[in-house]
Formats: sequence, structure tokens, C-alpha cells
Amino acid sequence: MTTDLNDLFTLLRFASVSTDSNHNADTRAAAVWLTDKLNSIGLQAALHETARHPVVIAKNKHIAGRRTVLLYGHYDVQPAEPFSEWRTPPFEPTIVGDRIWCRGATDNKGQLMAHVAGLKKTLGEHGDLPVNLICLFEGEEEIGSPNLKPFLEAHRQELKCDVVAISDTGMVAAGQGTFTYGLRGVACCEIIARGPTIDLHSGIWGGAVANPVTMLARLVASFHDADGKVQVAGFYDDVRPLAEWERTEWRKLGETEAETKQITGAPELFGEKGFTELERRWARPTAEVNGIGGGWQGEGSKTVIAKESFVKFSFRLVPDQHPDDIIKKVTAHVQQHQPPGVRFEVKLGHTGFPYLMDPTSPLGLAAQNALVKTFGDKPALIREGGSIPIVQTFKDVLGVDTLLLGLALPDCAAHAPNENFPIANFETGIILNQNLLRELAR
Amino acid sequence: MTTDLNDLFTLLRFASVSTDSNHNADTRAAAVWLTDKLNSIGLQAALHETARHPVVIAKNKHIAGRRTVLLYGHYDVQPAEPFSEWRTPPFEPTIVGDRIWCRGATDNKGQLMAHVAGLKKTLGEHGDLPVNLICLFEGEEEIGSPNLKPFLEAHRQELKCDVVAISDTGMVAAGQGTFTYGLRGVACCEIIARGPTIDLHSGIWGGAVANPVTMLARLVASFHDADGKVQVAGFYDDVRPLAEWERTEWRKLGETEAETKQITGAPELFGEKGFTELERRWARPTAEVNGIGGGWQGEGSKTVIAKESFVKFSFRLVPDQHPDDIIKKVTAHVQQHQPPGVRFEVKLGHTGFPYLMDPTSPLGLAAQNALVKTFGDKPALIREGGSIPIVQTFKDVLGVDTLLLGLALPDCAAHAPNENFPIANFETGIILNQNLLRELAR
Repeated sequence: MTTDLNDLFTLLRFASVSTDSNHNADTRAAAVWLTDKLNSIGLQAALHETARHPVVIAKNKHIAGRRTVLLYGHYDVQPAEPFSEWRTPPFEPTIVGDRIWCRGATDNKGQLMAHVAGLKKTLGEHGDLPVNLICLFEGEEEIGSPNLKPFLEAHRQELKCDVVAISDTGMVAAGQGTFTYGLRGVACCEIIARGPTIDLHSGIWGGAVANPVTMLARLVASFHDADGKVQVAGFYDDVRPLAEWERTEWRKLGETEAETKQITGAPELFGEKGFTELERRWARPTAEVNGIGGGWQGEGSKTVIAKESFVKFSFRLVPDQHPDDIIKKVTAHVQQHQPPGVRFEVKLGHTGFPYLMDPTSPLGLAAQNALVKTFGDKPALIREGGSIPIVQTFKDVLGVDTLLLGLALPDCAAHAPNENFPIANFETGIILNQNLLRELAR
Repeated sequence: MTTDLNDLFTLLRFASVSTDSNHNADTRAAAVWLTDKLNSIGLQAALHETARHPVVIAKNKHIAGRRTVLLYGHYDVQPAEPFSEWRTPPFEPTIVGDRIWCRGATDNKGQLMAHVAGLKKTLGEHGDLPVNLICLFEGEEEIGSPNLKPFLEAHRQELKCDVVAISDTGMVAAGQGTFTYGLRGVACCEIIARGPTIDLHSGIWGGAVANPVTMLARLVASFHDADGKVQVAGFYDDVRPLAEWERTEWRKLGETEAETKQITGAPELFGEKGFTELERRWARPTAEVNGIGGGWQGEGSKTVIAKESFVKFSFRLVPDQHPDDIIKKVTAHVQQHQPPGVRFEVKLGHTGFPYLMDPTSPLGLAAQNALVKTFGDKPALIREGGSIPIVQTFKDVLGVDTLLLGLALPDCAAHAPNENFPIANFETGIILNQNLLRELAR
């Protein structure tokens, strides 16, 4: 195993699940290790405290007249549950075939460490980098980066830069360089339905009172029509229509349905009429249930009417939807659908803005050149369905665009059991980092 | 503490949760203890194996010419989850105020042990009972008594009797003797919705595939109209209308809404139009969700599209609905509502027939007399919403009616956290047992 791969494995072993306070020590340990690693390759790195998980900052010696590039990544990961679905231990990196299997392998530790290895290589070869570099690696991406904006604001001067670069998105296919110029935003909330103050025997009381699970299911059903179009009033008001060049560019990527069915295992694809699958995923908003629960969860049956039930929603947003506006409309929808016998409560979760940049800007073209030098062909120009809310934060606070040069394949299972990262993508990522800094230096 | 109360406490301490195989040893230990107890008071008791939990049988010496009474009870209990809702330990009986708080205190250990104490008292006072007695205490009532019918069939001769008596139902109010002449039946099933073969990132894939939780919620919503009337085709076809004397008798019980709101804590009552609350609970069928689950259940958010989701349903049935027919109609409903992108599967659970007897039959009048002697006033004549499917089994296999002389109060929280049983009801139950055998001996 190469030293670089060994470093990645060390980082993967920290179970840095940012949403779960039981993993606070693991999350911190990952940040400490990363700081030491960045110092060891010749950067000046330091760990910065926030209200929750620390931010790691590293720099080379900045020289006036050079471009300043901020390289962003995150060392936190999603929870690994359900553990029983994993074919390898979720926090012990394991090579099977030509891939590394581990929570965080692709999102984001594998991509982050490819860049770190690229920096190490260039520093080893040339003693310096062609640009002024700032590494900013945070530990709260998977919980919506609550402390990053205040951190950027507090360190605005030290973090002043010309552009941000991130590898936390996807490639349309193995070996196909991919430039992501747009992302969906996100708005999360949980809705709780409360009825009786105790769980009731459903034989004795059934027929007398409203069932919180049934009423919540009816509410969930009110969010879509039969074709999956969202029924929240005003939900689509601010959606910017797709540009014709985008539809053309995306059609060039070919038919994706068969591949999507193969990766997801879904028996059929499903969604809003009038849009292709890629258009629905990249440029149309959604209302997805991420979790529902209430009443008896165990083996066999327990004939109760549960006193409460919950559903967790996330809404993916596209330009020019505003997360706060969507949450307001969703809250109004819930209130309008308040049935008798239960009470709904909306608890707000994290939010993030959608993002869109011009891929033909000078920096966009530099990124495309780096992709050509690394992969050979003209890169695919895409948007993505996921959210990296901090991209908008970088725009707002630092006033710069973000270049999204993803290294994940569609079947890398980010956020799912059996997350994985091809060793080849890790190695290509090292070269991409070198090419990117060289192109941005021009 | 009296010896009788001490015996009850001992039985309550066995966590005899029949649905949970982790509690098999506790369930068996309860049966063994009960067998010993019945032998110790002067009956001939023995434990009989079944495919799962044992049946305890005890008899006095039978004398020709006397009536034979089969006294039924169950020593198994519902699960105690959610544990966090209990104000006292769920399996350590605790006296607070004038009640005993414990899982099983009312359903059914408290009522069962009142009868056992009554038998002990009569045997102590007279050396014998006025009737030929058969005690039959099973350990599978809370899972639908799967092995009781085969057991009755195999022991038809030894269990030959004139009538069955059970205390496993309710009193309409403290001190008000109550004769239950009807019960609802039950049919349980679980419906599973399967979509993708792995949990998916809801940002990357949201919009491309159907969400199993959303689709299951839409299915749940299709089971009722906005007023709670069941929408499964043919569901009400075989419902026998309420007799006019029943509606009159039940109206005498007065307004129940305020009490039901107080006990359940429901903000409003809810249900099918055109029926009073008691009519809805006692003589109308229902479709209740007992549990729903799918996707992220933990703290915070995890933005996944879950690969599957489940819902557990129980249908309460009234004469002359047939459980198998209802399950067939429900299965057809699920198939008719099969959406694209997910697959529904119906898993069958336990079933039981509804029951109805004539409270003015000679045995019904004997039971009413015993209630008058115990409580003073004419008993309330009611049906109940819960199910005791074995009542129909006794009718089918042994050819006899069942007398239901309940001792539970509406706020005893059967099946719920903080289940309890008034000490006074335990003591009255002892006297009721003595009066009942005396009246049935006439």
C-alpha cells in the first residue's frame, strides 16, 4: 500500500459522525490527525475551535501577485446505520476489487485526501505550490455547516481568496472529467403529530380518537400528486427554468434510465412529468421523506394507537428558490392540513441555498482545462442534485465562485451502506490537484 | 401486604412478554410458578407444553351432576415499550395511591389472580367449590393464541364444560358491575413497501425514483376518508346493525366524551359519523395503524431515500365480519393501490372472530345475579372494543358460551405505559369469583 493510501485509511478509521454527539471524540480526533498531517507535508496548519466541531486551516507561504486558491473539504461523515446492510465493517477501510469500502470513502475523505496527496507531491517535487493556498477542512458539512459562516466572517481577512475549489461531487462516468456548475439547495424539517397523551389499546379505544400515525400519513400524502409533483402552494413559484443549452448538453450524456435503475435497484423510475431523469435530479426541486416513525417498531404486533408520530422531510431547492420561503410555505401547508384529533408541530432543520455559476468564466475555463489535462476529453458540464450549502456561503462572505471538480462515481453509495471509492479515482485525484493548481496559476 | 397481593406481585415480576422471544424464559417461569400456586391451594394443576408457550390446567375433584365451569385467564403480557414513559419500573409492581402499577397489573394478571384468590378462599372455607372447576391459563393471548385451538381440540374431553368465565374486560365505572356480551374481532397484517435495493442519497437521487415511505404513506391515507370511515371496498358489507335495545341501554351510560378525552388526553374525539363514541368503539369496525417505520430514526437528519418502509395494521371486526374475508379485501385494496416504483407486500398476522351472546340466557342471568350480589346494582350491559378471539374458539370447539365479567377500569392503561389495577378491584374480584361459582351452581 502507498503512503498516500495508508494516510487515507487512517483518516477513514475515525468514526467522525458529526450529527451524533456520541461520536464527538472521534470527530475531534479526525481533525487533530488532519492538522498534524498537513503540518507534516510542509504547510502551516492549525486547528480552530467552533461551537461544535473544529475547522482545520492550512496555508503555504503566500507570495504577492499569485492567485489565492481556497481548497475546501470536510472530514465529517454521515451515520453508517443500518449497520446490518454493510458487507465490510463501516469504519474499517477494506479493499475489495479495485475499490475502498468504508463510510466516508467517497464523501468526502477519499476526495479530500487525494488533494492532500497532490499537495504533498507538488511540494515534494518543487518545494512550493504554484499558487497561494488555503486549505479549509470542516467537520460539520453533514449537519449543514452551522458554524462555518460565522467562522468565515470572523476570519474574512485570513481567508481572502480568488476562488474556492472542492471535490465533493460526482463524475458522470468512470474516466469522464466532470465540471459541476450548479447544485441544489436544501431545507429540512421534522413534523410531529401528537394525539392522545398516552399510547392507547387500539381495541378498546379504536374508533373514538384520531390516530396520529394515520393523520401524519395523510399529511405526507398531501405533499405530492400521483406523479410526484409537489403540492405545497407556491412551491414552484421561484424555480428558474432550465436554459436550452443545458438541456442540449445534458441530452449528450445519453440515456441514463437503465444505469439509474441498475445503481438504485428501483423497479421503475418515477417523478414529475415533462422532464428527463437528469433534469428532475439536477434542476427540479423535490420534497423527500427521509424518515418516518411511530407506534410499535418491534417483532410481531402490538395493538396500540401511538400517542405521536414523526416524519423527517428534506426539500431540495433550485435557483431561485429561497430555503426560508420554502419552509414558510411548507409550514403553511401543514397548518392548512391540520386534521381534528391531532396537533402537528413543525421543527426546523438545516437549510442551504442552491448554487449556479457560469462555466465559461475565466476560472471556469481554467477548471475545464485542468480536467482536460487530467482525463483527456472535454469535461461533461452538469449540475448536481445534492447540496453543498457552503458554496453559497463562500459567495456571500468571501465573494468568490467555487469550482466543483468531483471524483465520485454514481455507484459510490454516498450516504448509503457500502459507500466506496475506486483506488483509480484517488490516484487521478492526486494528478487533478496538481493540474488544477497549475492552471489556476496562469 | 396480604398473602393474595403478595402472590399477585410475584406473578407480575415475571416479564412474560409472549411476542418477544427474548422473554421466552420469563414467560415459562410465570407458567411454572402459576402451576405450583394452583397446586398449593388444593387444586390438581399441571403444565402442558404447546409449540410455543405452555398452558396451565387445574381442576378440583369433579362430581357428577354439578355444573362444570371453565375459568380462563392469560399469564402473558404486552411489551412494555416505550420504557421511558413509565413512572414506575414496568416489571416491578409498585403501589402508588390506591393502585398497583405494573405491566400486566390489569391485563390480565391482576384479574386472573383475583379469581385464584377467590378459589383459595372458598376452598379454605368449605374444602371444595360449589361447581366442577377447570382453570385454563394460557401464555399466548397477546399474540392471538395460536396454539390454544389445537390444544382445546386435543383435550376436548378433559375440558368439556357448561360455560366459560373470563375476567379480561372492563367495568364502565368504579363500583359498577359490568357484563360484556359482545367483543370485536381482529385481523392483523403488516404491509412492506420496497423500492430501491439500497438506501439512496436524497440529494443525488431525489426526483429520479419513488420514495417507499411516501408511497406507503399514500397507501395508508387511502384506507380512510376524512371522517375516518374505512375505504376498503366491501369492508362494511357484513356488519350487523346495532339492535335498538343496545343503543337504548348504552345511552343510559350517559355522555362519555368528556371522560374519554380525560383518559386518553386526545384534544378532540374523532370517528365515523352517525354513531356515538361508545357505538364506534363497541359495534363498528376500524382500521388502525399500530406502527409505521422507515428511513432515518435517529437524532438530527440523514438525507436518505430509504429502500423500504413498513406499516402494521390491525382491523377490529364486528359481527358478522369474517377475519379472512377482511384480510382478502385489504390485500385487494393494497394491490389496487400499487403505485409505480415500489412494490407492496402484505404479511398476514393473527386474527380472531367477533363475539356476541344473549345476556338474558340462563347462564347470562346467573352472571348478572353474581354481579348484583357483588356490586349491589343491576350491571351495565355492554359490548367491548377489544378482542378475545378465544371466546369464539371456546364456542367452536367446546360448544359453550363465555361470561365476561371484567374488573378493569377505563383508565387502567392496558397495553400502554403505566398500566395499573386498583387494589379495591382485586379485592372485589375475589368476592365476585365466590358469588359467580355460587350462582352458576344453582
